[in-house]
Amino acid sequence: MNNIKYGLIGTGRLGSEVETILNENGYSIVLKEDINGTWQIGEPQLIIDCSLPEAFSKTIEHVKSFEVPLIMATTGLTNEHLKMLHAVSRIVPVIQSFNYSIGIQLLLKLTEIAKNTLPGWDVEITETHHRFKKDKPSGTAKMIQNVFDGKEIEVSSLRLGNVAGDHTVYFGGLGEVISIKHSATSRRTFAEGILKSADFILNKKPGLYTFTDVVFNPTKEG
Amino acid sequence: MNNIKYGLIGTGRLGSEVETILNENGYSIVLKEDINGTWQIGEPQLIIDCSLPEAFSKTIEHVKSFEVPLIMATTGLTNEHLKMLHAVSRIVPVIQSFNYSIGIQLLLKLTEIAKNTLPGWDVEITETHHRFKKDKPSGTAKMIQNVFDGKEIEVSSLRLGNVAGDHTVYFGGLGEVISIKHSATSRRTFAEGILKSADFILNKKPGLYTFTDVVFNPTKEG
Amino acid sequence: MNNIKYGLIGTGRLGSEVETILNENGYSIVLKEDINGTWQIGEPQLIIDCSLPEAFSKTIEHVKSFEVPLIMATTGLTNEHLKMLHAVSRIVPVIQSFNYSIGIQLLLKLTEIAKNTLPGWDVEITETHHRFKKDKPSGTAKMIQNVFDGKEIEVSSLRLGNVAGDHTVYFGGLGEVISIKHSATSRRTFAEGILKSADFILNKKPGLYTFTDVVFNPTKEG
Amino acid sequence: MNNIKYGLIGTGRLGSEVETILNENGYSIVLKEDINGTWQIGEPQLIIDCSLPEAFSKTIEHVKSFEVPLIMATTGLTNEHLKMLHAVSRIVPVIQSFNYSIGIQLLLKLTEIAKNTLPGWDVEITETHHRFKKDKPSGTAKMIQNVFDGKEIEVSSLRLGNVAGDHTVYFGGLGEVISIKHSATSRRTFAEGILKSADFILNKKPGLYTFTDVVFNPTKEG
Repeated sequence: MNNIKYGLIGTGRLGSEVETILNENGYSIVLKEDINGTWQIGEPQLIIDCSLPEAFSKTIEHVKSFEVPLIMATTGLTNEHLKMLHAVSRIVPVIQSFNYSIGIQLLLKLTEIAKNTLPGWDVEITETHHRFKKDKPSGTAKMIQNVFDGKEIEVSSLRLGNVAGDHTVYFGGLGEVISIKHSATSRRTFAEGILKSADFILNKKPGLYTFTDVVFNPTKEG
Repeated sequence: MNNIKYGLIGTGRLGSEVETILNENGYSIVLKEDINGTWQIGEPQLIIDCSLPEAFSKTIEHVKSFEVPLIMATTGLTNEHLKMLHAVSRIVPVIQSFNYSIGIQLLLKLTEIAKNTLPGWDVEITETHHRFKKDKPSGTAKMIQNVFDGKEIEVSSLRLGNVAGDHTVYFGGLGEVISIKHSATSRRTFAEGILKSADFILNKKPGLYTFTDVVFNPTKEG
Repeated sequence: MNNIKYGLIGTGRLGSEVETILNENGYSIVLKEDINGTWQIGEPQLIIDCSLPEAFSKTIEHVKSFEVPLIMATTGLTNEHLKMLHAVSRIVPVIQSFNYSIGIQLLLKLTEIAKNTLPGWDVEITETHHRFKKDKPSGTAKMIQNVFDGKEIEVSSLRLGNVAGDHTVYFGGLGEVISIKHSATSRRTFAEGILKSADFILNKKPGLYTFTDVVFNPTKEG
Repeated sequence: MNNIKYGLIGTGRLGSEVETILNENGYSIVLKEDINGTWQIGEPQLIIDCSLPEAFSKTIEHVKSFEVPLIMATTGLTNEHLKMLHAVSRIVPVIQSFNYSIGIQLLLKLTEIAKNTLPGWDVEITETHHRFKKDKPSGTAKMIQNVFDGKEIEVSSLRLGNVAGDHTVYFGGLGEVISIKHSATSRRTFAEGILKSADFILNKKPGLYTFTDVVFNPTKEG
C-alpha cells in the first residue's frame, strides 16, 4: 500500500471510476472538487483532473498551491489551456492526454511498426460504436489515420447497438492480410490508465509528459 | 458413379473447374464448345454454360437439339436472354443464377431470418475484396441489401491485397450484436454449386429453377 | 403506456435491470419480494421471478394467489421445480427459459438452418468470456452443441479480461467459410428479453411457453 | 531490371512460384536441379533451395562450386544440416528460415511488443487451417508461443474446409482486448519473401542470416 494522498477534480463517470480504482490500490482521496464545491480533509500529493475545461483554472490553482504533480484527463482543452499546462510543467511534472487507454496506445504503436514494415500494402481502418455516436469517424480513428503521415487512409464507420468501441487496422498484401484490433469492453480501462499514470508521475522531475511516455517510456525524465 | 454424359459451353477458369469436379463425381464430358470450336464424342444428357453472352444462341441451339436440361452460369445476360431462357424452360428444365455459391445463398437466407427476428436493430454490411476490384459495393453486397426491402442499409467496402471475397452482415441491439460472415477461399465453391445443380436437375420436369431452389427447395418441380 | 401492474421476485443485478426497463415501458411495480421481505402496494397482473431457487415456493404461492401469468428467469432449477411449473401452467400461462437473450435464440436458430443446409461441412465453435469464468465450455456453447443432435462438435474456449461473452459457430466447406457470431455487450439484453416475454404472455391461455416461442412463435397459444 | 542469374533447386509448388516471381522481377534462371536431373545454361550468381532435405548435399556442392549466396527455404532440415549451413556461411552469405512470410514475421514482432507492453494481461492464440492438416497446433502457432519465453499459452486449433491459414493472438485486460491476426490468402506470399531475400543477400558479406533480418534488419552485415 503506497498510501499516497490525492485530490480529484471532477466526480462524473470517469472520476468515479478513478476514485474506485485508486482506492483499491492504496491511494487515499483527501480533496474533491466538483459542481457541489470543495471537500478537503488533507493535503494532496497529486492532483487528477477528470473534469471539464470550466474547472481548468481551479485545477491549476490547486496544483500551484500544493506544488504537486498533475494528471490532466479532461478533453476539450483549448490551445490556450495547453500553453498554461506547459507553463505549469516547469514547476511540477504534468501528464496530459486525450485518451488514457493502454490498448489504444499499443494499437497506435503496432500500427506504426506495421506501416514501416509493409510499404506498398493496402491499408483500411474500421471503427464500430454505439448508435448514439453521431460523429464519423471517431477521434481515435483519426489518431490512427495520423500514423500514416498524411497519406489518405479510408475509415469505414459502423454504428451498432451499444458497442463501446472497436477499432481495426488492416494491412493487405498479395497473399496475406495482417489486422490489429482494439475492443473497449468498459470505461474501467481509462481509469486503469490514470492509475498507471499516477504510479509513473510521483517521483518525476518537472516536465510535460504524455500517456505514450507512461506506456512506452517509463523511465523518461523532464 | 452416375455416368451422366454432359456438354460444356465455355472452358475458361470456371469451366475448367467444373470439368474437373464433374469428372471426379462420375460425369463424362462428351461435348465441348469454346473459342476453338466444337468437340464432340457423344450425345449429352445435360448442358452447362459457363461461357459469355456471345455463346448464348449456340447454347440454346444445343439444348433444343438434344432436348436436355440446361444449367446457365453465364453472367452479363440481358433481359432478352432471360426471356429466351424462360421460353426454353417450357421444353426442358433450366437453372439460371448469377452466383452458384451455397454459402452466399445461405448468407442471404440467414440475413432474412435475422431481419425478421430483430426489428428495430441497427444493420451494417461490410465487404472486402482484392485491390483490383474497382466497383463498390460488390454485386453480392447489393444482393444482401435487397433482403431489406428497400430500407437503405449502408455498405462499407474494403480493398485489401488479393482477398477472394468476404461479406459480413451485422445486427446491433442494445446489449448484443449478431453477425453473419461469408468468406470465399477459392473459386472451387462455384463449381461445387454447379455440380449440386447438375444432381438436382437431371430428373426434374421442365421449368425455370434458381440456385436458391437447388439449395433450399430440392424437391421443387416445374 | 400499457400501465400493467407487476410483481418482481428477486432484486439483484438482473432484477434491477428488469425493473428499470419495465418502468421505462409503462409497467408499474406493485409487489417486490427479496431477502428483505415483501413490499406491496397493489395487485399484480403478472409475476416475474429473477431470483434464486430458494424463492421458488414463495413465487408459486403468489402466482396461485393472484392467478396471473408467470415469467420464470431463475437458473439452477431442479427437475422437481420444472414439474411444479408444469402443474401451475394448467392454471396460468408460464414462460420458463435459462437464457432470455434474443440474440442467442437467433444464433441457435441460424445454426440449425446452416447445419441442415451444409451437410458434410466442418463445424467449429468458439466462446470467449472473462477470466473469472471457470467452467469450460460455457452453458450457451453446450446449447449450440446440442443443435448438432449428438454429433460431437469441438468447442474452443478463450478466457480474456472482462469480455461479457462471445460465441461463434463456423461452417467450413471446400472454397468457403460461413460463421455466425453473437457478442453480448451488456446485461441489459436479458432484461429486454423479459420485457418482450411480458408483452407476449399477458393475453395468452394457460400453458408452458419458452423464450423460443416468444421470439419465433409469438401467436402460439396453450 | 537487375538481370541477376540464379539457380533453383526444387521445382515443386513453391519452386514454381519462386521462378515466376523472380522472372517477373528481372532475375534469369540459368540452372535447375530437380528429380529429373540438372539443367544448366549459365553460371548462377545466387542459389535458391526450395527442395527437400534429400537435395541438401547437391545444393551445398553448387554453392561451393560457384561461391555464391544461398537462400535455403527447405523445411525438415536436421541439426546436422544446420551445422553444415553454418560452416558454408563462413564462405558465402546464407539465409535460412522455415517461413518466408513477411506477415508472419511481423505478427511475431508485434506479439513481442504487445507482450512487453501488457504484463498481466490474458493471452490466447487461435489458428485455423484446412481439414487436411492433421498436426495441432500449427508450427507457426508454436513460433508464437515461443515469444512468451516458456510461459504456457494455450492454442485453440480450428480445422475448417480449405482455409489456407489464419493465426490470431489475443491480449485481454480488464476493459479492453487487443488482437493481432494474420491470414494467408495464397502461397505467393512465400515466394515474395524469397524475392525479398534475394534482393537482400546479393551484396552481403559471408554470414548466416535469417528472414527476420531481411524484414527488420536490412542493413545487417555478416
